[in-house]
Amino acid sequence: MIAQETERFILVRMAIKIAGVKNIKLPITVVQKDGNHQDTVATINLLVRLPAVLQPDCIATFTAVLNRHIERISVEDFPGLLADVCASFSAESARIDMRFPYYLEKTAPVSGTRSLMEYQCIFSGGVGADDGFLLTVKVPVTTLCPCSREISEVGAHNQRAEVTLSARFKKMIWAEDLIALVEQCASCELFALLKRPDEKYVTETAFRNPMFVEDVVRKVAQLTLENPLVTWFSVGVESYESIHKHSAYAYVDSGDISVKNGHVTGMGG
Amino acid sequence: MIAQETERFILVRMAIKIAGVKNIKLPITVVQKDGNHQDTVATINLLVRLPAVLQPDCIATFTAVLNRHIERISVEDFPGLLADVCASFSAESARIDMRFPYYLEKTAPVSGTRSLMEYQCIFSGGVGADDGFLLTVKVPVTTLCPCSREISEVGAHNQRAEVTLSARFKKMIWAEDLIALVEQCASCELFALLKRPDEKYVTETAFRNPMFVEDVVRKVAQLTLENPLVTWFSVGVESYESIHKHSAYAYVDSGDISVKNGHVTGMGG
Amino acid sequence: MIAQETERFILVRMAIKIAGVKNIKLPITVVQKDGNHQDTVATINLLVRLPAVLQPDCIATFTAVLNRHIERISVEDFPGLLADVCASFSAESARIDMRFPYYLEKTAPVSGTRSLMEYQCIFSGGVGADDGFLLTVKVPVTTLCPCSREISEVGAHNQRAEVTLSARFKKMIWAEDLIALVEQCASCELFALLKRPDEKYVTETAFRNPMFVEDVVRKVAQLTLENPLVTWFSVGVESYESIHKHSAYAYVDSGDISVKNGHVTGMGG
Amino acid sequence: MIAQETERFILVRMAIKIAGVKNIKLPITVVQKDGNHQDTVATINLLVRLPAVLQPDCIATFTAVLNRHIERISVEDFPGLLADVCASFSAESARIDMRFPYYLEKTAPVSGTRSLMEYQCIFSGGVGADDGFLLTVKVPVTTLCPCSREISEVGAHNQRAEVTLSARFKKMIWAEDLIALVEQCASCELFALLKRPDEKYVTETAFRNPMFVEDVVRKVAQLTLENPLVTWFSVGVESYESIHKHSAYAYVDSGDISVKNGHVTGMGG
Repeated sequence: MIAQETERFILVRMAIKIAGVKNIKLPITVVQKDGNHQDTVATINLLVRLPAVLQPDCIATFTAVLNRHIERISVEDFPGLLADVCASFSAESARIDMRFPYYLEKTAPVSGTRSLMEYQCIFSGGVGADDGFLLTVKVPVTTLCPCSREISEVGAHNQRAEVTLSARFKKMIWAEDLIALVEQCASCELFALLKRPDEKYVTETAFRNPMFVEDVVRKVAQLTLENPLVTWFSVGVESYESIHKHSAYAYVDSGDISVKNGHVTGMGG
Repeated sequence: MIAQETERFILVRMAIKIAGVKNIKLPITVVQKDGNHQDTVATINLLVRLPAVLQPDCIATFTAVLNRHIERISVEDFPGLLADVCASFSAESARIDMRFPYYLEKTAPVSGTRSLMEYQCIFSGGVGADDGFLLTVKVPVTTLCPCSREISEVGAHNQRAEVTLSARFKKMIWAEDLIALVEQCASCELFALLKRPDEKYVTETAFRNPMFVEDVVRKVAQLTLENPLVTWFSVGVESYESIHKHSAYAYVDSGDISVKNGHVTGMGG
Repeated sequence: MIAQETERFILVRMAIKIAGVKNIKLPITVVQKDGNHQDTVATINLLVRLPAVLQPDCIATFTAVLNRHIERISVEDFPGLLADVCASFSAESARIDMRFPYYLEKTAPVSGTRSLMEYQCIFSGGVGADDGFLLTVKVPVTTLCPCSREISEVGAHNQRAEVTLSARFKKMIWAEDLIALVEQCASCELFALLKRPDEKYVTETAFRNPMFVEDVVRKVAQLTLENPLVTWFSVGVESYESIHKHSAYAYVDSGDISVKNGHVTGMGG
Repeated sequence: MIAQETERFILVRMAIKIAGVKNIKLPITVVQKDGNHQDTVATINLLVRLPAVLQPDCIATFTAVLNRHIERISVEDFPGLLADVCASFSAESARIDMRFPYYLEKTAPVSGTRSLMEYQCIFSGGVGADDGFLLTVKVPVTTLCPCSREISEVGAHNQRAEVTLSARFKKMIWAEDLIALVEQCASCELFALLKRPDEKYVTETAFRNPMFVEDVVRKVAQLTLENPLVTWFSVGVESYESIHKHSAYAYVDSGDISVKNGHVTGMGG
């Protein structure tokens, strides 16, 4: 058994760079744009980049840090949590991913009926070498196929799609802002609750606004480019095709786009 | 430590009724209706109802049995596998669930282009107290909303849906037969590969054939009732609504339906 | 197009028995045993058994009902929600499944460190033909293999397992009670947060308390049988074997067990 | 409706960079290292980077290309598939991800019993700007906690873990080679089928070879570094802790490691 012990001893001296915990699930309280607080449930990953080995009590340490912050999570407060993690671990850098369902009240377009709509938010952030905060929202929308509408005498196939928009920014942006941006960019936005006149509106709006996944990506990219606070972004759209069993997908990130004199030239055909 | 040992000894004498293994994954060869063989990958659960305790080598025993059968799996051959399991375990009864993707070649409706379409099949069977073979197919289809079509000036929302049909029968039925039955019962069937004239056909067919999930369930139930070989069935339809984030769902099983003189009366409004 | 319309008309007259919505996700507030309230996030299915067809605005109706109740969900309050659903739908019967993560504070066995542990709870209930409330808890535990311990000179393989206990009862039972019952029945219970002396305790406790999945099922069954409030129960245990890629599984429900004069005889070997 | 049309026209001119299809599922035949062929089922994503817009028939085109290749997939043949995709799309570059379960026969360590073990393989490859082939294997193993063993009088907690090793290389490497490499690096490897003497061997081997996730990562990294054909790699290990509900995780990629004169110095503590 000595052999193995020695081997482990040697291995320990070659510090692994990234270690941590995955899939910690905890209730958290998120600060909304309107100042109210929302209680939800987060799945949390913590990865720290270490100068040396991870101490055995790392999970206890991390949980203690988390407990100091879970009652007030927001884009604004997240850097404080990260700094606290780094200090507690003497880590070179740390990265946290916190994914949670996020609910916003929406108003149906004609009847005005209110309902809660569920989105997914991810706060990803690092300090040190993994610097920078990344805010991601996942927004369900409808896409209606332009090709299908053009070639068919009646109707056009449409389906649920999901838009994933991630952004880095120099000044505070709210998840609410990114969600609102995305919901302008599809054939139609979704609602949790629709009465008949609303269903008519949604159906007709989608039909009059046919978009491929590429079109949705392009429109989201365009609107995000116009936001001077955003320093980097990516947008992906997956459409669960109603006439197939697979998905259509499109993606772009701001690194692929050149902007000259305010004109988007790099994206030009 | 004596206390625990004694406790375990007592507990062992109260035989647990059902024990087994879950999530064994193995390549299998399935016999098709056309006589050809199809190689696929199955997820297998085995549960045995035992008179006494499960022997320690149960997984080894089960795997040995499985290995004798995996090169030729079919509705016809499944009872042989079950009998072999029961004999090997001296079990009162045994139950196996074998779930696998199953591929059928389909021909696009206008262009005639061929492609492989994926379905899910489940062979569930028992011998002894858990007697009877249950064949389940999961078939993706399109549903187009009758309400949306009726109230809207143009278009109608539609989406991918999944039909789950399970059947018991007195004589051999093929998965191919159940799949073909289901594909007649939705707003339109799906294809892996469509050229433009096919997409026009699928779009228009769905528009002309609007169905709620209840309509699909009813039609599948009606056609299944007409098959004299079927002794019991259930059908569920889940529609991934394109204008909402939730699903619409409907279900019926043959126990809910009375048939008198060949007329379906129990389902009547 | 007349043909299809007529067909749909006929089909509509054969009322489907069960229809509803699946995967509605909403924040809810759950009443704890200690009287406090816990905010969490539920995934909700609603199925109603109808005398006739489902009205088009069913989701709007259901959501309105849900909104009247989501701020106070408990075993005690659930029947009120169900009655409200039935009345609103003029349904013969209704069934709701509400699944949510549920958090309880636990105290580490030696250090006394506190942490929140996540469980899954399911409230399933019906009124009318689907009468009866079913409370389900899913509790993660450790199992340590008796066979491995017996045959090995050192160590014994152990792994995470999940116990699913469902119970019907004549008088109020709390999820907290079922969870506490289950946590006594495995090789060792789990904790979200352990310091070194706790880890020593958990390791040694599991080693001194080896159990197959059948043993865990048997012990949970025995303790549940002793609760006079429980009228029916089932218990299943799935162990994610650390030496295999598949799971071991065992299951029993109270229908399989005969109890005579307070003695469990039906389970006898 | 003219407004929308015009908008779409303008948007179309800003070519999206990446588009494609996701979740195409097809049976494929994989060439094994021993020259035999293995039938399995793949989930395939295709993304192409385009100079202009995606043509409407892109899925038909891609499926036609796939069909020319699915009967013979291997590390060796994959570049041919990619080149065919690029040529067919006039794409600047293309990227395919093909994920499939892969089965290898293993021999139990003492009894010599043979069984099929399931792994996950991912072939990811690009031509053009997304140049390079990445081979990924996911290998289930056991980890036994060194800390738990050290502090406990008897036993040590252990659990299933998954190692994900991805590698780029200058000359042909087989999935079989990467899997064999990983299986030397944990507390013990897993088997689909073990008899009692094998279970004793596996239990004792794990106990005598305690490893944190960091230790496994380090050992995999060390062995991979010694392979002169590998030009880049990453290794991540997730351990499904048996005493917690969350996972432990560690990761390193070759970019984090400096090698000087054959000595791994960058990893030094």
